[in-house]
Amino acid sequence: MTRPTVDETHDPARLSWVESANGHPDFPIQNLPLGVFSPVDTDERRIGAAIGDRILDLRAATVAGLIEGAASAVLGDATLNRTMGLGAAERLHLRRQLSKLLSDDTHRSQVEPLLHDTADCTLHLPAAIGDYTDFYVGIRHAENVGKLFRPDNPLLPNYKHVPIGYHGRASSVRASGAPVIRPNGQTKAPDAEAPSFGPAKRLDYELELGVWIGPGNDLGQPIPIERAMDHIAGFCLLNDWSARDLQAWEYQPLGPFLAKNFLSTVSPWVVTIEAMAPFFVAQDPRPEGDPQPLPYLWDEDDQASGALSIELEVHLSSAQMREGGQAPVRLSHGPAANMYWTVGQIVTHHASNGCNLNPGDLLGTGTISAPERDGFGSLIEITRGGADPIRIPGGERTFLQDGDEIALSARAQAPGRVSIGFGSCRGIVQPAPAV
Amino acid sequence: MTRPTVDETHDPARLSWVESANGHPDFPIQNLPLGVFSPVDTDERRIGAAIGDRILDLRAATVAGLIEGAASAVLGDATLNRTMGLGAAERLHLRRQLSKLLSDDTHRSQVEPLLHDTADCTLHLPAAIGDYTDFYVGIRHAENVGKLFRPDNPLLPNYKHVPIGYHGRASSVRASGAPVIRPNGQTKAPDAEAPSFGPAKRLDYELELGVWIGPGNDLGQPIPIERAMDHIAGFCLLNDWSARDLQAWEYQPLGPFLAKNFLSTVSPWVVTIEAMAPFFVAQDPRPEGDPQPLPYLWDEDDQASGALSIELEVHLSSAQMREGGQAPVRLSHGPAANMYWTVGQIVTHHASNGCNLNPGDLLGTGTISAPERDGFGSLIEITRGGADPIRIPGGERTFLQDGDEIALSARAQAPGRVSIGFGSCRGIVQPAPAV
Repeated sequence: MTRPTVDETHDPARLSWVESANGHPDFPIQNLPLGVFSPVDTDERRIGAAIGDRILDLRAATVAGLIEGAASAVLGDATLNRTMGLGAAERLHLRRQLSKLLSDDTHRSQVEPLLHDTADCTLHLPAAIGDYTDFYVGIRHAENVGKLFRPDNPLLPNYKHVPIGYHGRASSVRASGAPVIRPNGQTKAPDAEAPSFGPAKRLDYELELGVWIGPGNDLGQPIPIERAMDHIAGFCLLNDWSARDLQAWEYQPLGPFLAKNFLSTVSPWVVTIEAMAPFFVAQDPRPEGDPQPLPYLWDEDDQASGALSIELEVHLSSAQMREGGQAPVRLSHGPAANMYWTVGQIVTHHASNGCNLNPGDLLGTGTISAPERDGFGSLIEITRGGADPIRIPGGERTFLQDGDEIALSARAQAPGRVSIGFGSCRGIVQPAPAV
Repeated sequence: MTRPTVDETHDPARLSWVESANGHPDFPIQNLPLGVFSPVDTDERRIGAAIGDRILDLRAATVAGLIEGAASAVLGDATLNRTMGLGAAERLHLRRQLSKLLSDDTHRSQVEPLLHDTADCTLHLPAAIGDYTDFYVGIRHAENVGKLFRPDNPLLPNYKHVPIGYHGRASSVRASGAPVIRPNGQTKAPDAEAPSFGPAKRLDYELELGVWIGPGNDLGQPIPIERAMDHIAGFCLLNDWSARDLQAWEYQPLGPFLAKNFLSTVSPWVVTIEAMAPFFVAQDPRPEGDPQPLPYLWDEDDQASGALSIELEVHLSSAQMREGGQAPVRLSHGPAANMYWTVGQIVTHHASNGCNLNPGDLLGTGTISAPERDGFGSLIEITRGGADPIRIPGGERTFLQDGDEIALSARAQAPGRVSIGFGSCRGIVQPAPAV
C-alpha cells in the first residue's frame, strides 16, 4: 500500500500569513484543498486552493512563476481532471509548494494579490465527471434500509463478500448550493391498484463521502489492492438525494434509477489524499464469524491504515426556521468508521474486472450510518420508513418538505493534529415542476 | 410528436456517383450515417459520412466551402457531440446537402478528392459519451431471463408500467472491433460455500439497439412525450457484453455492475433519425389486459408511428471456424418490434424526474429477443441458462469461449424503400488477465 505520509505540511505548528486560516475549522494551512471557482463578476473557471476564508488563484500563481513541476502545465485548466491525473509525487510536490507559499512570509507580497475572498466567488464542480459510481459500504445503513425493503433478509448473502456498488448519473452531479428540485415520478402505494405520476412524497438525503479518482487504469488492466491509493486524488462530501417512493417501485430488478439521478450534490473542495495523511487509521476488525475477504481485496497494510478518521454531521433547517433566524437542527453525527469496506477496497473491486477508471471520476461510499438513531445517515432510517417522525422547531418531519435545507459537514481529526474540514455540502428543496 | 418526414433524400430512385453506394447493403445514399474516423496512417479524428465503401471527410468538405449552415461550425470537431446537439432542422439541412453533393454529378470533381476508402480508415466512437443508460424494453428477454433468475416471478409487477432502466458505464463503451477481454470477478456456484475470484465462465453477448441523444434537456426540465423525438440524434447497434456468473452473485440489491461494465461495444456509424424517417411504424398494440401507460408516457402519434422497422441478426464464429475459412453461424434473427416501449417513451421516462440528457449520451434499449428460440438475443436465453447447448461447426456452445467472435447486424426496411444497414458491431473474446 502506497499512501501519502505525514510531513512538514501537516505540522501543527505551521501557520499561514493568511490570518483567517489559523484556527479555521475547515481550511487551515494543513488542508489546502483544491477546487474550481469563478472570481467575482466573471464566468471564468479557474483552479484555486482554499486557505481560511480566501482562495489562492492557482492559474495566476502559475503564470506568476510561483509554481513549478508538472502541475504548472495543468493548473490553467477549467477543471481539475488533469491535476487529479497527476501522479502522487507530483500532487505532493504541488502541496509542498502551496504550503510554503502560504506560510513563509517572504512570499507574502507576491502571493497576496492572487487571493480572492471566498464569499465573493462562485464555486463549481471540481471536475468534469466521466462516470459516477455509488457504493453501499455503510453496513448499518444497508441493514437499516434492508429491513424496510426486505424485512426477511435485510443484508443479502453477497454483502460481506462483495463491495456492492452501482452506476449513478454523472450529468446531474452538482456543487453545493444547487437547488434540489423535487422530482416527479411513478409511485405505487402498497394498497393502490395502479401506479400514479406526481411529485415524490418521500424525498430524502443520504450522507456519503465522495472519492475523486486520480490517474486511473486502462481498460482491461485491474488495480491491485496494494496500489489502490495511488488512484485516489481526494475526498469530498456527497449527498445522494433519494426519492424513496420512486425507488421502492422502480428498483427491481436493475437497481435505483430515477429515484436518484435527478441530483447528487458534492462539496466543491477536493480534500487531497495528501492532506488526509494524518487521518488514516486501522480498519475496524471484522466481527467474529464474518468471512475473510477474497485475496484480491485483502492487504494487511490497507487493513492497518486504510480507514478514515472523519466525523460526519447532518443539519436540517426549514424555510420557517431560517426566516425566524433559528439555528439548524442536527439530524445525526457519527464516524466514517462505519464503512464495512475501505476506499482502497472499493477502488480495487471496481477495476477488478478491467473496468477503466479515469481522472475526475467520482465514487460515493454509500450512506454512512452509525449504529444508533442519532447517527443514521438518512431520514428513511431516522424515521423508520416514515413511521416515527422527528420533531423540529415548529413542526415535525418524516421526509423533506419544500424549503428544507440539508447541510452535510465533516471533519478529519487525529490526536495531536490540526483537524481539517470539508466545507459545505448543502441544498434547499424546491417544489416539483407542474405535471 | 415531431419526427423527421420522408423527403427526396429517401427517394429510391436517387443514386450516387460513388458507385459502390448503389445497391450497398448498409450505406446507400439513402442512409448517409455520420461517424468519426482516422484517415490511413494518421491519429487525427475527423467527422465523416459513410457512402458505399467510402467515407466523405466532412471536415474537409466544410473547409472547401461545400457545407453551409450551423453544421459547418461543428464538423471540424473530433467528436459528433456538437453535431448531435444541433436541432433537427439543422441536422436535416446537413443531410440534404450531403445527399445532393453525393448524387449530383456536378459536385463530383470537387467532392471526390475528399473521399477515403473505408477499408484504410480507423473508425472510432462517434461521441464522447457523457452518460450511458441501458433499458430493458425487450419483453421477451425480460421474461426469458426473469425465469432463470426468478423462476417464480419472471416479469416483476412494475415491468408493464415503468420502462425499467439503469445506468451503465460510459468509460468502457468502445467502437466495433475492440477486444473483449474476459473479465475476472467474484462468482459463487449455488452449491459452493463461499465465492471465488477468477475468469468469468458464463460470458455472454446482448443484442441491443443504441440511441444517441441529440439536444437534450436542462436539469429539472422534463421532456414531454410529444417532443421526445427532437432529442434523438440517431441509432446504432449495441452489444452489452455480460458475465452471467458475476451478475447472478452481485446484482442484488442494486443491479448489474461488474458483470457489465468491462465493455460495451457499439457500431461506429450513427444512423441519423432523419435517415430512419421511412422506417417508423406503428407500435404493436399492447396485449389485451395489459395496463394503459400513464399519461406522461402516452402519445397517440408515438403509438401510431414511433416503433422501428428494423431486422436484427447475430452471428458467431469460433477461432477454429475462422482459421478453417468457415462462414459464421447465425445465432438469431428477429425484429425490433419486440420492444415493449418505444424509443420516445424511454427518452421521456428518463427525463421525467428532471434528469438531464446531453448530446452524445447513449441509451441502450436492452436485449431485443423475438418470442422463439431462433430470435433470442443472448446465449443465456438460447441455451436456457447453459442447460441446452447449441451446435456450432466443430463443437458446441453454452457461453462464449476465448477466440469466439460475435457480430451484430441490422437492417431497416419498409415496402418500396431502399433498405439501410447499421454497419458492423463485432468483437473477439480474449483470455482473462492472470489473477
